[in-house]
Amino acid sequence: MGPDTTDRGETIAVTLEAERTLRDEDLTGLAELAAQLRVDAIRCTTMAGSGHPTSSLSAADLLAVLVARHLRYDWSYPGNPGNDHLILSKGHASPLLYAVFRATGAISEQELLETYRRSGSRLQGHPTPVLPWVDVATGSLGQGLPVGVGVALGAQYLDRSPAHVWVLCGDSEMAEGSIWEALDKAGHYGLRALTAIVDVNRLGQRGPTELEWDLDSYRRRVEAFGCRAIVVDGHDLGAIDDAYGQAREATGPTVVLARTVKGRGVPEIENDPSWHGKALDPELADRAVRALGGPRRIRVAGPKPPAAPRADPVEHRRPELPRWSRGAKVATRDAYGDALRALGAVRPDVVALDGEVSDSTRADRFADAYPDRFFQMFIAEQQLAAAAVGLAVRGRRPFAATFAAFWSRAYDFIRMAGVSRADITLVGSHAGVEIGPDGPSQMGLEDIAALRAVPGSTVLCPADAVSCAALVAQLPDRPGVSYLRTTRGAYPVLYDDGEEFPVGGSRVVRDGGDVALLGTGVTVHVCLAAADELTREGIDARVVDLYSIKPVDRDRLLEAVRDTGGRLVVVEDHYPEGGLGSAVLEELADLGAPARVRHLAVRGLPGSGTPTQQLDRAGIGVHAVVSAARALA
Amino acid sequence: MGPDTTDRGETIAVTLEAERTLRDEDLTGLAELAAQLRVDAIRCTTMAGSGHPTSSLSAADLLAVLVARHLRYDWSYPGNPGNDHLILSKGHASPLLYAVFRATGAISEQELLETYRRSGSRLQGHPTPVLPWVDVATGSLGQGLPVGVGVALGAQYLDRSPAHVWVLCGDSEMAEGSIWEALDKAGHYGLRALTAIVDVNRLGQRGPTELEWDLDSYRRRVEAFGCRAIVVDGHDLGAIDDAYGQAREATGPTVVLARTVKGRGVPEIENDPSWHGKALDPELADRAVRALGGPRRIRVAGPKPPAAPRADPVEHRRPELPRWSRGAKVATRDAYGDALRALGAVRPDVVALDGEVSDSTRADRFADAYPDRFFQMFIAEQQLAAAAVGLAVRGRRPFAATFAAFWSRAYDFIRMAGVSRADITLVGSHAGVEIGPDGPSQMGLEDIAALRAVPGSTVLCPADAVSCAALVAQLPDRPGVSYLRTTRGAYPVLYDDGEEFPVGGSRVVRDGGDVALLGTGVTVHVCLAAADELTREGIDARVVDLYSIKPVDRDRLLEAVRDTGGRLVVVEDHYPEGGLGSAVLEELADLGAPARVRHLAVRGLPGSGTPTQQLDRAGIGVHAVVSAARALA
Repeated sequence: MGPDTTDRGETIAVTLEAERTLRDEDLTGLAELAAQLRVDAIRCTTMAGSGHPTSSLSAADLLAVLVARHLRYDWSYPGNPGNDHLILSKGHASPLLYAVFRATGAISEQELLETYRRSGSRLQGHPTPVLPWVDVATGSLGQGLPVGVGVALGAQYLDRSPAHVWVLCGDSEMAEGSIWEALDKAGHYGLRALTAIVDVNRLGQRGPTELEWDLDSYRRRVEAFGCRAIVVDGHDLGAIDDAYGQAREATGPTVVLARTVKGRGVPEIENDPSWHGKALDPELADRAVRALGGPRRIRVAGPKPPAAPRADPVEHRRPELPRWSRGAKVATRDAYGDALRALGAVRPDVVALDGEVSDSTRADRFADAYPDRFFQMFIAEQQLAAAAVGLAVRGRRPFAATFAAFWSRAYDFIRMAGVSRADITLVGSHAGVEIGPDGPSQMGLEDIAALRAVPGSTVLCPADAVSCAALVAQLPDRPGVSYLRTTRGAYPVLYDDGEEFPVGGSRVVRDGGDVALLGTGVTVHVCLAAADELTREGIDARVVDLYSIKPVDRDRLLEAVRDTGGRLVVVEDHYPEGGLGSAVLEELADLGAPARVRHLAVRGLPGSGTPTQQLDRAGIGVHAVVSAARALA
Repeated sequence: MGPDTTDRGETIAVTLEAERTLRDEDLTGLAELAAQLRVDAIRCTTMAGSGHPTSSLSAADLLAVLVARHLRYDWSYPGNPGNDHLILSKGHASPLLYAVFRATGAISEQELLETYRRSGSRLQGHPTPVLPWVDVATGSLGQGLPVGVGVALGAQYLDRSPAHVWVLCGDSEMAEGSIWEALDKAGHYGLRALTAIVDVNRLGQRGPTELEWDLDSYRRRVEAFGCRAIVVDGHDLGAIDDAYGQAREATGPTVVLARTVKGRGVPEIENDPSWHGKALDPELADRAVRALGGPRRIRVAGPKPPAAPRADPVEHRRPELPRWSRGAKVATRDAYGDALRALGAVRPDVVALDGEVSDSTRADRFADAYPDRFFQMFIAEQQLAAAAVGLAVRGRRPFAATFAAFWSRAYDFIRMAGVSRADITLVGSHAGVEIGPDGPSQMGLEDIAALRAVPGSTVLCPADAVSCAALVAQLPDRPGVSYLRTTRGAYPVLYDDGEEFPVGGSRVVRDGGDVALLGTGVTVHVCLAAADELTREGIDARVVDLYSIKPVDRDRLLEAVRDTGGRLVVVEDHYPEGGLGSAVLEELADLGAPARVRHLAVRGLPGSGTPTQQLDRAGIGVHAVVSAARALA
């Protein structure tokens, strides 16, 4: 396909932002473009035999106007920091998004029609950043907008860039609380860089949405949450254009509430609740495409951002990490706060986020030093994770912290961050029964299991301040989702300043050949105390600090199996399922290294008590480790 | 402490609901009760050395009026179905709740002062149902209100009971999206049985809340979400009383927005942002208690619900489960829908909930048959899980279904349901790469890891319709959180009608002694096909259907290890971490049964494709199983 040839001879005029008035010929061109998007969305889903054409048809006019008139985007250089962002929060409308990509020339008609939803294709059922024009994976509803808030925070507050963030939402996803977390933060931060476009097509998957076409209720909600609402007919190209123009010029966040018709353009299935997530059969598709005027070869250029040179990679100085004396008692959450502050001094790309517990996680130490790079998300963990993802889209290295337990609130966002391959670090403090009297609601006891099961993730749990700081220093350059679990309580520093703690490594804290005690975080200290006691019984116990849980140090595991005749005790302050024990067992199975493993974990439901009482009651205290080791040795 | 003796001679008059006007002596009595609650909250936290006195002080007047004048509750019979419900959404204010319990005589002053936050105590840092007057565990903010919505749905729609649900919320937690999911559903369902009381004390853990004392913004939001808002001075006993009276009589849900002062009653720390989650030191506590008039021995009775006989246990008929022929191809999601409908016919306590995907999960089959016992939560998975918990509080047996992947959205709620020991069933359809072209956002690939790591949970994944239906029939009587994973695709029925499939069991689908292939759900069928191929190579493979993942069938595992010389291939349509492989390895480690385990799981990030292409690409297809078995045999 040549860039300027079209079947019907039209080209959409590139109408620059500065030109405010829409001419009649522009409207014709926009209508043609919208028709092409509809035709392509129908064709690609029918050829794939699945997908969501009707949810694409309702929003075709919304995206046609956006891409031709308002989205400033250099399609040949998706990394241009001046580019606007287009986030498809209603990810199931991927046929529409891909039809847009085809109209811009980013992908070919052939790729669209022949590979959509096929094995090995980058045009997956829901968009992911395997496509260079896609910032984040969507498809779990209610996530695109919270991520957009993070992108807008980065563009507006950090980069002071004119880049605008356009998020296309479905109306069904307005029922997700995360949408309201996002609008609340958009209002709180006055995010003029953000426009949400809601495709109110009245119909969800299995029938009418809760509010159907009650645009006024949507408007009241949006306004109550501190955003400007503009209600438009989502098929009136001029009205859409006007709304986008107002949104771009607004002094705060805008929500364009567009009343649309699901299936618009195919009268046989318009506004029909039985038509969700189904491809048209070839005959119906053919009829529909013909009624829409047939396939077109329109190429849209749209407005461009200012030209930007490709950025050279930056060499960062090594941080001056804080120093601690061996044996001094330091909580790893304190080491985290101090190390992050030190990192902030040499890494302007490092930013921090809080879920209203920064005095506990010690993120406040970064906040005090670098208030401009610190974002308070209040108690909204979904938005906390999503903002981190959004800031990563803008090239930042976000560290977001809350209690380990409360990351479970954002688990779907973390899962999707894994699919997006977002480079973010999540920090969970107050993990395990070690926290003491607060009770199980505050104890992260499933965090390791949950975070390990995120694709491409890294899971770390240092036992002392030195190793914690060394790991923190590496995390900005670690790809994917990294999770760092810190302790509430203070424990002796085990290592000397300046030692290396590579991700995927481990440490033998104490040598011994009768049995190996494998711990992580607080349980390393439990293992050390147990080893002392075992020595008195004549049992020579090795203690291994598995600070890296994923990836786990397979060489060290093999060595421990070999040196102890396969006698291992694994101790973790976590439920028995999916944590350190599983990591060790899975690795040993893969290695084909048979071992006799005693696995100590929190098997009952904890209550209140002091940290020591809690460890003992949970069966992961010194006495339990000694007994387990004795039974093996 | 005798029931009627008090230090100061007062008793709070039992002022029944019917008596609308508050007398002067009532106000004096209420003030005295509030003072006692404050004194006790201070004393118990100071004695424990930790806890949240200031967050209790702000709400003392709110609960004093509630418990003395509006909460209809038989403290000697917490199981009375006519009882109102008091849910402490701001669970960290447990000192206040326990002080209320002491004032009602439910617990003694000694228990309050001497056991709060101690090891083994039922008065934990955050309340859990280990206390008979506590419906659900709280402490993860933003959960009490969504659960309250579920309780109110049960009381108002199913029981047609006058029981009212009173939820005390903090203002910080209003930032959680789940609160807005809850108010949205409260408005949608017109829950006149629900009153939320928001303690707007302006201060969160680390400083001012987002909206501080902007009561008007809260009011606008609440009203926009379809609830009535009443703004009061939260320390004006008469105004509070009036608001509660209006709430009880309202025709829809009410939110009482109470402007309060954190630390109220202790001038030295009132409205001080540095006073969160800290016990007063003994000297300050002593001064504060004296200024408040010292300890009291007030007993409050409060209004009572109608007397109710204790209910006899009900014998349920066995359901007439649907029947299928061996070999017929049936998706287990279809079996779920049909079995649930059959169960509904004999179990009036079974209810179903949907997250707007009932046509996919097949929950619509129950909805069609029993619309009165079906609740649509739209796309709000947190509220979906919370409503299930709330309905379980009212004695129902809820089955809530959505896509397996989207349960990750509600993971914190599921975690807390585990802490609450709530008897609920969650069903996840569309799990794994088996779903085909939709891509990773729609694939539950971490659900087994996440759900296994919930305390007291059950995790099931049947491979055929007959076993699926048999498991569904058992779940209403299964304690705790149960999770059932179903397939999107249709696979051959493996078993005969009427066979038993106990939770914790398994099935040898095909015998063999050279190697054992262990699968669950779709991978049982992969293993069967692989076994056929292995037979042609002269390898005699056993196929085990591990439909129960937690608990897993240890006897069958031991038998497989013994009979095959420890040659096991575990195959799962799930990420490698924390799933079936871990369950098997953890169990074998506990048993001390060494085995050579090849673990096949989804190790890369999937894309689109047909189900067979997906299984093959993920390395869990027939060919991969054959290779793994061949390498072991």
